[in-house]
Amino acid sequence: MSLLVVGSTAYDTIHAPTGDRERCLGGSATHFSVAARFFSPVRYVSVVGEDFAKSDLAFLEERGMDLDGLEIAAGATMHWTGKYHADMNQRDTLSIELNTFGDFSPKVPAHWRDTDFVFLANGHPSVQAAALEQIDNPRLVVADTMDLWIETANEPLHDLLRRVDALILNDEEAKQLAKEHNLITAGRALLELGPKLVLVKKGEHGCFLFSEFFQCALPSYPTENVVDPTGAGDAFAGGFMGHLAETGRVSLWNLKRAMAYGTVTASLQVEGFGTDGLALVERPLVEQRYAEFLQFISF
Amino acid sequence: MSLLVVGSTAYDTIHAPTGDRERCLGGSATHFSVAARFFSPVRYVSVVGEDFAKSDLAFLEERGMDLDGLEIAAGATMHWTGKYHADMNQRDTLSIELNTFGDFSPKVPAHWRDTDFVFLANGHPSVQAAALEQIDNPRLVVADTMDLWIETANEPLHDLLRRVDALILNDEEAKQLAKEHNLITAGRALLELGPKLVLVKKGEHGCFLFSEFFQCALPSYPTENVVDPTGAGDAFAGGFMGHLAETGRVSLWNLKRAMAYGTVTASLQVEGFGTDGLALVERPLVEQRYAEFLQFISF
Repeated sequence: MSLLVVGSTAYDTIHAPTGDRERCLGGSATHFSVAARFFSPVRYVSVVGEDFAKSDLAFLEERGMDLDGLEIAAGATMHWTGKYHADMNQRDTLSIELNTFGDFSPKVPAHWRDTDFVFLANGHPSVQAAALEQIDNPRLVVADTMDLWIETANEPLHDLLRRVDALILNDEEAKQLAKEHNLITAGRALLELGPKLVLVKKGEHGCFLFSEFFQCALPSYPTENVVDPTGAGDAFAGGFMGHLAETGRVSLWNLKRAMAYGTVTASLQVEGFGTDGLALVERPLVEQRYAEFLQFISF
Repeated sequence: MSLLVVGSTAYDTIHAPTGDRERCLGGSATHFSVAARFFSPVRYVSVVGEDFAKSDLAFLEERGMDLDGLEIAAGATMHWTGKYHADMNQRDTLSIELNTFGDFSPKVPAHWRDTDFVFLANGHPSVQAAALEQIDNPRLVVADTMDLWIETANEPLHDLLRRVDALILNDEEAKQLAKEHNLITAGRALLELGPKLVLVKKGEHGCFLFSEFFQCALPSYPTENVVDPTGAGDAFAGGFMGHLAETGRVSLWNLKRAMAYGTVTASLQVEGFGTDGLALVERPLVEQRYAEFLQFISF
């Protein structure tokens, strides 16, 4: 079934204990797609500036992204600079130049109105909603969000939550949005806001899925080789939704399998800077790590 | 098989968002035993003062603790006062009066020298070692430790680690002791220090087991009703070792089951102040929650 992402394409400058990189290809749509493409082609809705490298366009196209929804606007591509601490679970944003992404008004090509699986990557909830309006009857809509929008766009975010099937966010954000200290209580409270599924990312501690009828949790893949965690959450979402789009089923068991695939793609993602962790990976390695992960969690 | 604990018996004064309690029965040996007793009688090695209530002695005896190793010394019972934050993962120690526990010199009764399963609850590594010397040929020795001993008794702790089968500690302490930022790297490094197993407690994020030949992780039981987390780690160890002692097997699969039982006893423990969460529980409720937990993590 068809899979579409709406989100950012960016250049990221990264300072980490593992090294420094200038202007790696990044952004939520990119990281999502590079993980999802093992399972499904990706309809890619985003914006870049005139400085976006032809080689990066080619990189995305060669990996199965359909770029009909990628706008090349006057100005520069979004540029984020961040620094990871010795404990790589912590980072500081040193600068963020939104550039063309600051005025992003997503345009979903008319021939993509029939999309089945939609991922609204982290962005202003009004922009996410504007994209969603351009799709007729999606099978499953998943929205990501973050603390910035909880704080500055709370009402549009609540409006959006009444219109999506699933919300994905990290554990601190889940507690913040629900105004609860206990994650389980927070997860249940978020279901009251509209989504039928709430998927909480906990980084090295794994992920948690809440729904009205069941809940489940997975640990993360036990990786020692964390080079650059940038985009790990989007790579998780990419594996998760890629598996759902490939199989076309949104059952309990398939959601669990999708969480495990997301865990695997996120674990590969963090093993290189920018898209390096996933760029050269092929499907058999994903399946091999998936099998290892099932062994790790099997009971 | 026989199970023995060496640790503290204390009165805890607890201030929490869920309420306040003066001088609840607590301490590592108590919390361990109240969880382990579902599976096995417990040989109890600890010290209290002359103020220790007869009703508390009766409480322990009625729950299957053999108190031949409990010394009643001149002075007062250890008294800890702590305050939990709104986020109950965080707490401050307001005061700690070691009293009789400050001079604790564990005396293992001669008829307990044959003990199979030994839990050295958190304490000075030299005291833990002194207890261990009084047991002839234990099948499995598990030692708990904490940041205080990593900082102030690093050499005795390293000596102890060469003599125990398993180390249990929380994730921050594991990273601190191994001097590593990545938990997986830390876990492997700790195995180099002597123990064949390293069991890392991550509170609401579950637990992680490292060994030379395999590793596995479990999420925590999804509980909303956190009343008082004091002693949760000891209650985890109690369920873990209780199951091992009851079954007498230390296989991979049995260790995983033991981790799940520990998860269950810890989840019950936090649902009341002091020992209230587990005091009135009977085995069928433990088994019911164990079955629910397996359902929650099943894949």
